[in-house]
Amino acid sequence: MTTVTFLGPAGTFTEAALLDMAGLAPLAGAGLDPVPVDSPAAALGAVRRGAADYACVAIESSVDGPVTSTFDALTAGPELQIYRETEIDVAFSILVRPGADSAAVRSFAAHPVALPQVRQWLDAHLPGVELHHASSNAAAAHRVAEGAIDACAAPARAGELLGLAELAADVADVRGARTRFVLVGRPGPVPARTGRDRTGVSFTLPNRPGTLLDALTEFAVREVNLSRIESRPTREAMGAYRFHVDIIGHLADAPVRGALAALHRRAEDLRFLGSWPAHAPGPADAPPPDVTESLAWVDALADGGRR
Amino acid sequence: MTTVTFLGPAGTFTEAALLDMAGLAPLAGAGLDPVPVDSPAAALGAVRRGAADYACVAIESSVDGPVTSTFDALTAGPELQIYRETEIDVAFSILVRPGADSAAVRSFAAHPVALPQVRQWLDAHLPGVELHHASSNAAAAHRVAEGAIDACAAPARAGELLGLAELAADVADVRGARTRFVLVGRPGPVPARTGRDRTGVSFTLPNRPGTLLDALTEFAVREVNLSRIESRPTREAMGAYRFHVDIIGHLADAPVRGALAALHRRAEDLRFLGSWPAHAPGPADAPPPDVTESLAWVDALADGGRR
Amino acid sequence: MTTVTFLGPAGTFTEAALLDMAGLAPLAGAGLDPVPVDSPAAALGAVRRGAADYACVAIESSVDGPVTSTFDALTAGPELQIYRETEIDVAFSILVRPGADSAAVRSFAAHPVALPQVRQWLDAHLPGVELHHASSNAAAAHRVAEGAIDACAAPARAGELLGLAELAADVADVRGARTRFVLVGRPGPVPARTGRDRTGVSFTLPNRPGTLLDALTEFAVREVNLSRIESRPTREAMGAYRFHVDIIGHLADAPVRGALAALHRRAEDLRFLGSWPAHAPGPADAPPPDVTESLAWVDALADGGRR
Amino acid sequence: MTTVTFLGPAGTFTEAALLDMAGLAPLAGAGLDPVPVDSPAAALGAVRRGAADYACVAIESSVDGPVTSTFDALTAGPELQIYRETEIDVAFSILVRPGADSAAVRSFAAHPVALPQVRQWLDAHLPGVELHHASSNAAAAHRVAEGAIDACAAPARAGELLGLAELAADVADVRGARTRFVLVGRPGPVPARTGRDRTGVSFTLPNRPGTLLDALTEFAVREVNLSRIESRPTREAMGAYRFHVDIIGHLADAPVRGALAALHRRAEDLRFLGSWPAHAPGPADAPPPDVTESLAWVDALADGGRR
Repeated sequence: MTTVTFLGPAGTFTEAALLDMAGLAPLAGAGLDPVPVDSPAAALGAVRRGAADYACVAIESSVDGPVTSTFDALTAGPELQIYRETEIDVAFSILVRPGADSAAVRSFAAHPVALPQVRQWLDAHLPGVELHHASSNAAAAHRVAEGAIDACAAPARAGELLGLAELAADVADVRGARTRFVLVGRPGPVPARTGRDRTGVSFTLPNRPGTLLDALTEFAVREVNLSRIESRPTREAMGAYRFHVDIIGHLADAPVRGALAALHRRAEDLRFLGSWPAHAPGPADAPPPDVTESLAWVDALADGGRR
Repeated sequence: MTTVTFLGPAGTFTEAALLDMAGLAPLAGAGLDPVPVDSPAAALGAVRRGAADYACVAIESSVDGPVTSTFDALTAGPELQIYRETEIDVAFSILVRPGADSAAVRSFAAHPVALPQVRQWLDAHLPGVELHHASSNAAAAHRVAEGAIDACAAPARAGELLGLAELAADVADVRGARTRFVLVGRPGPVPARTGRDRTGVSFTLPNRPGTLLDALTEFAVREVNLSRIESRPTREAMGAYRFHVDIIGHLADAPVRGALAALHRRAEDLRFLGSWPAHAPGPADAPPPDVTESLAWVDALADGGRR
Repeated sequence: MTTVTFLGPAGTFTEAALLDMAGLAPLAGAGLDPVPVDSPAAALGAVRRGAADYACVAIESSVDGPVTSTFDALTAGPELQIYRETEIDVAFSILVRPGADSAAVRSFAAHPVALPQVRQWLDAHLPGVELHHASSNAAAAHRVAEGAIDACAAPARAGELLGLAELAADVADVRGARTRFVLVGRPGPVPARTGRDRTGVSFTLPNRPGTLLDALTEFAVREVNLSRIESRPTREAMGAYRFHVDIIGHLADAPVRGALAALHRRAEDLRFLGSWPAHAPGPADAPPPDVTESLAWVDALADGGRR
Repeated sequence: MTTVTFLGPAGTFTEAALLDMAGLAPLAGAGLDPVPVDSPAAALGAVRRGAADYACVAIESSVDGPVTSTFDALTAGPELQIYRETEIDVAFSILVRPGADSAAVRSFAAHPVALPQVRQWLDAHLPGVELHHASSNAAAAHRVAEGAIDACAAPARAGELLGLAELAADVADVRGARTRFVLVGRPGPVPARTGRDRTGVSFTLPNRPGTLLDALTEFAVREVNLSRIESRPTREAMGAYRFHVDIIGHLADAPVRGALAALHRRAEDLRFLGSWPAHAPGPADAPPPDVTESLAWVDALADGGRR
């Protein structure tokens, strides 16, 4: 059995992402034991302690950007490694207890990341409703079922599991909203290169002008492209950042290895976050160049065998 | 009278920041009419509509990074311009109604940005308390005063204004936490160069590899340093970003002008967000070089007068 | 009358280049007084002293590269400026006294730059001939006419002027060989921009790693292309160089001005060598971009008039 | 016996350089058979044909820059490799036949590279003398001994060998002039790294803007410094160049290998010219950084063993 923590309870988008990855390596084959927890930090903490094999956590929203709590948890504490990713379309059901209608809704709960994605709908249909913070959207649904809150935004499946009614379905202020989830474990062998991979790193840089430019140049000069770059405050001082970068390519690609070795010299606290298959490479994704021939040329020079 | 909107009600950190800037240009001299509103977006909207002269809004926290709602509001809609900035030490009073003690506290409210900054204190002193979302910390204090909520995190001044008691003072999970606020108006003449200035721009880049590196090179090659770089999703697709950059220097510095003109050619949607005096330049801040002599040399070439 | 020194006597390629430029600015209109001298250094020296208005000197060969003596003379002494350029096809007549044949040729003279361009012909037709150094090809022809030398390589016109016979015509080891000549005067107003111009500079750089790369970046970042880059020893130490760069573009192009101002800060001894119309821009020549709109955008920011 | 060709006859600076390297690898130990030839091209040709093991050729003068004939010969034909270098102080004796004095000197011979280094002395002491071209300075001395020429510039040793008199000793227009010589063989095992090495490459680049900058960036980004960069016309068109670069470092240095592999992808016709011990590293010479630790970090990532 493979134990995987996720932001529960049953019915969250995170659970949907986990089920999506259940048939794929490294989860496929062995039985799956999903363990709901109440925060990404708790999900990752269980993996760090050895209480779980993997954690499934949201890492990026096309609407709100990075899930900062996941980012911060990934880099605080012992090293972790990403093994897989998936993306989920994000649209909400507005759930109430059976028989309730809009007029009766005084209070509304959702996860803080979900709120900005249904705010226009709320302004239009539930103006002035009292907003509450839930640890997950499915947890918000539980509070509606218990009668503590009148309505919530949650995945449709959460309503089905709890027998709630839908005031509205498929609510999403931003059409096409998606969230990316990753499967995180302790450091281990990197999944095999598929040719459409991502590699993640996280690092701080010396506090001098030009260090970010120099770091980015290490990628550019090797034609290694980035799909994402984020900065998070280190909390040490205003303007001090930790960078998170997603690289298009795999650790087994020589240009990626070269860029990582170069970054190792420039960065102050560099973490390798894994190489894994990309869920959906964009049309503009360009993997690093094949440099096999150039490396062979150099290797042949030392003993004069080039002719 | 100069009308300035701010995140109210009275007693917020934003009000403290506004009072801090009241004696400085462009607010000094004329009478000040502070107008509390319930969100940064509302504060900026009033300026855009002409209902207010300026808005005072939080833009960055040393703990949580950019205030994303302010960022998004700054660049959605007609152009706005920053005229001034200040920074405020952030530490909270935990406020209750007079006579209440910890044991009686069941519910707790704070602004979503404040919550992560008192969470350790909450875990230690009010474990399991029900968390509520308030539009501002001072609004949370009002809800405590009204009896709707049992406790809140807010500036000490909010408690004084409302006659609340302090369960704890000077609470801050992260020591030295600060928040930066800016004074925003409609586009107008740029404040005079002081020699320790910031210039803000916001832009998107063509979706090709290397465009961020090329943009950063325009600054580096002119020895123009950046104090901050942020990426925010454009909400159009996963991985599409809008960048916000704070430049060390003033529009009147020739290297800054050169970098902005270059960026104008590379960026797809470039907004100038103003040049203004820095609140507290760091010890490592290096303003752009003085290139007067080099420009004079070039100017003298055209008519052969260089000898 | 406009006095122009050139590498004489009559019949040199340099004279041909001068006649080629006689109908063009700045020579057109006024009468032309060509003054033969015996070296490029002498030609430039007369201009520096005020004894001549201009000098016509060879600057680059497609076969042998830079004419190093011209380069060195251009940068030793008071500043000079290039006003025009032309290119001449280089093919030689092998000249002897009337009636002479190959078998009678024991000695052969040519200008040192010409020798490598006829060496294959010499090896094939005059093996073992004694080689002599002449100050110009036409001077070599004079020595043949005088009987001091048996044969020489020179322009056909030199033979006609002196009544010599042609042992061979149109001799050129390298087909398509060309030499570029420039018209040099004292510093003065730069010729008007034509849209297909060259700008020359010469400079030394601080003796630190990366200074050449940094200097080249100033051009690249502004999309200013170079048509030529040469390094010449400064004679101060092994490995210390002076660089000569030809820029595609005119001093009136804003990106060229920007690059020159930047170079003025980086270089240790920078000389502007003029902006002039290119003789024959290559098909790959890309002039600097038109940045008028970007400069206008920046200029409008200072007084808030951008909307 | 190791056969080494050199620019003869006995008494040239090239012979002095060869004797200087006789006690060093790869010449030390085996007996040395020096074979005088009459040009660098002939010296290299004998090696290419297998008629000699090595050639000793001048490659750079601190006064006149690259010895262009050597450069061109090194890259025309089958590949060759540099195994060693040395530098020789260059000062000339002005040699005449015993009993002759200045007044009797009508003709003067020297190697074309030597002439510019004694020209000031000639202008001062032998104004108007007829200048002749010799294939080497020692060959010029032979012609003086034979009576064909009245005087020459040559190493003092050439005069001693031939019984000539010194009109002047230690003549050098430029004080401190030095010439660098290299020992060239067919491709073979690279000499061991000494920690103060040079690596030579020669290449052409695609005829597009920015290719030189991109190539130089491959060195700079890896902190690999260059001690020399030269451009030579390819003779195919005006403005088409072949570049010769000397790298500070050895093929066994990982950053050098990385830069060479990268250059292999960018260059159109790349030749490795060897790695060899530097004769005299300058005080500013900085070898490439030691990246052992960074490479070990990357190597440990694949199997998760980084903790």
